[in-house]
Amino acid sequence: MRATVMHKAYDVRVENVPDAAIQQPTDAVIRVTRACICGSDLWPYNGGPNEVGQRMGHEAIGVVEVVGSDVQSIKRGQIVVMPFAFSDGSCMFCDEALHTSCVHGGFFGNGGEPGGAQAEALRIPQADGTLFPLPVGEDDALMPSLLTLSDVMGTGHHAAVTAKVAPGSKVAVVGDGAVGLCGVIAAKRLRAEQIIIMGRHADRIALAREFGATDVVSERGDEAIECVRELTGGFGVHSVLECVGTEQAINTSVAIARPGGAVGRVGVPHYESVPGGQLTFFNNVSVAGGPAPVRAYMAELLPDVMEGRIQPGRVFDRTVGLDGVPEGYRRAMNEREALKVMVRP
Amino acid sequence: MRATVMHKAYDVRVENVPDAAIQQPTDAVIRVTRACICGSDLWPYNGGPNEVGQRMGHEAIGVVEVVGSDVQSIKRGQIVVMPFAFSDGSCMFCDEALHTSCVHGGFFGNGGEPGGAQAEALRIPQADGTLFPLPVGEDDALMPSLLTLSDVMGTGHHAAVTAKVAPGSKVAVVGDGAVGLCGVIAAKRLRAEQIIIMGRHADRIALAREFGATDVVSERGDEAIECVRELTGGFGVHSVLECVGTEQAINTSVAIARPGGAVGRVGVPHYESVPGGQLTFFNNVSVAGGPAPVRAYMAELLPDVMEGRIQPGRVFDRTVGLDGVPEGYRRAMNEREALKVMVRP
Repeated sequence: MRATVMHKAYDVRVENVPDAAIQQPTDAVIRVTRACICGSDLWPYNGGPNEVGQRMGHEAIGVVEVVGSDVQSIKRGQIVVMPFAFSDGSCMFCDEALHTSCVHGGFFGNGGEPGGAQAEALRIPQADGTLFPLPVGEDDALMPSLLTLSDVMGTGHHAAVTAKVAPGSKVAVVGDGAVGLCGVIAAKRLRAEQIIIMGRHADRIALAREFGATDVVSERGDEAIECVRELTGGFGVHSVLECVGTEQAINTSVAIARPGGAVGRVGVPHYESVPGGQLTFFNNVSVAGGPAPVRAYMAELLPDVMEGRIQPGRVFDRTVGLDGVPEGYRRAMNEREALKVMVRP
Repeated sequence: MRATVMHKAYDVRVENVPDAAIQQPTDAVIRVTRACICGSDLWPYNGGPNEVGQRMGHEAIGVVEVVGSDVQSIKRGQIVVMPFAFSDGSCMFCDEALHTSCVHGGFFGNGGEPGGAQAEALRIPQADGTLFPLPVGEDDALMPSLLTLSDVMGTGHHAAVTAKVAPGSKVAVVGDGAVGLCGVIAAKRLRAEQIIIMGRHADRIALAREFGATDVVSERGDEAIECVRELTGGFGVHSVLECVGTEQAINTSVAIARPGGAVGRVGVPHYESVPGGQLTFFNNVSVAGGPAPVRAYMAELLPDVMEGRIQPGRVFDRTVGLDGVPEGYRRAMNEREALKVMVRP
């Protein structure tokens, strides 16, 4: 079968690899019908840590082709969405809705087993706990939005949840990538009153406004902090959704939280520490977040997607076939020409 | 009147100062009947930032002597406990139970106005919002425990609340000072299942056990982290109460939290940043806390003190008169000979 393989920075290729196959009795294999390129795929592509031969991609919808002998609830032929992490669905962390810390879990497209989702097919460990069946046909018009449940919509929601967004909240979303835009959707869905999008790409800002952003801050650093204070009566926001992962982004996030405010961070940190000196302390600002347990959020978010109340699929602005994946990486990187690329193997 | 004044490191004196008096119509003046020396008083005493002439002390019970013309609910003659911060009780932050961020608030014994509580009397700004009347007489046997509502019991409770202690939680309390011991009481009160006290003073550990600690870790650094993991099935604790404020303490705290765990920090930070790299992130560990809004907790904690269900006053192991305050500082510092010193002016 064909799959996307990282060779080195700026060099991903679609190559022939051994067919995905059952290895454990709890596995399934899906035929991938939709996948994506994620912002976090761009870190290794852009020269960050990567592994020669690393299979890429961790977001997909597919059709179940084979199930292992111990798989109970997942059936051949089902249309399923996969979360970016696999999980058994039954350990103590899964019970606490923290599937990304499952004791039998792991991450797709992460260098080791299993493979990546930017491929014709994919082995799914812990199929019963991992896969989430969708009540639609293979070519349903809702596919783009359903596909975001694999990562970006669930991740934006996690940022909002860990930032404690509540009805009436003043919220800032740091970053106008696909996750940031889904963060806007999540904040609006949780009935935030004010949603400040912080970013500088005109087209993404326009989409953020359609998703519910009420204010825009395109400055960075101290100027951005000042702008947010001005927009919030001098105090800052209740909730900050940190959707970037750079040192500047986390520093800004902590600084724009009001006393008692909360930062929910979902950008994979490319920094080692969070500001925690007396200023943060005396303001009782909390910092939470991490990789989103998107599997835990699927059941909650699905009805809103099915009934059209949220349309996170609008973040996709390019579609490529599997052979177009390398070009998709280039376009996503190149001046951020693409917001989010969908892959149709 | 006589009050405690900081001259320089290791030099506090009890001196004659102008009598406490009403300055604003919202003020009251209390005659101090009980005060204390706090661990946080020892930072400036021990060579940390201090101010020549700084009035010391921020914990007290007293009798209301005079009230300003705008004071409504507080009456002359009432026995009251004061929180370590004053607050108007009506701003948006007070409404959110974050009295330490009150827009008209501030801290006692902090160098500026108002004065300090290790004194014969004290001016109380925002008397209606700040003072909490107690349903006891001036010499009630519960005075030591009631006095801890001024700071250490409320602060230990804040650590537990921000560390999300819940029934059945596994908890670690970092630090065996008065706040740490009150943290043990708070964790027990919130029905934690396992409470690991981390400290190395035999007498304090013994008291922690009486308060409900189930395990003791006296190691530090990596060894301490290893011990906590061993005591918790390898995963760490749900809740960490950071009651010290050093860099080592916060680093240990973050490291011993299990995936999805929470650190509640109440030790005034003598560090600038909190570990926040990929390890913390991938574990979805949250860090919260700050100066405790003890005013918000008084009504909740009072019944448990009145009915003897908690006895935080047992942290006091020395009582001095006002003239004994300098000696109290020396004893509290000197090899931590005193756990917590009560002052009876």
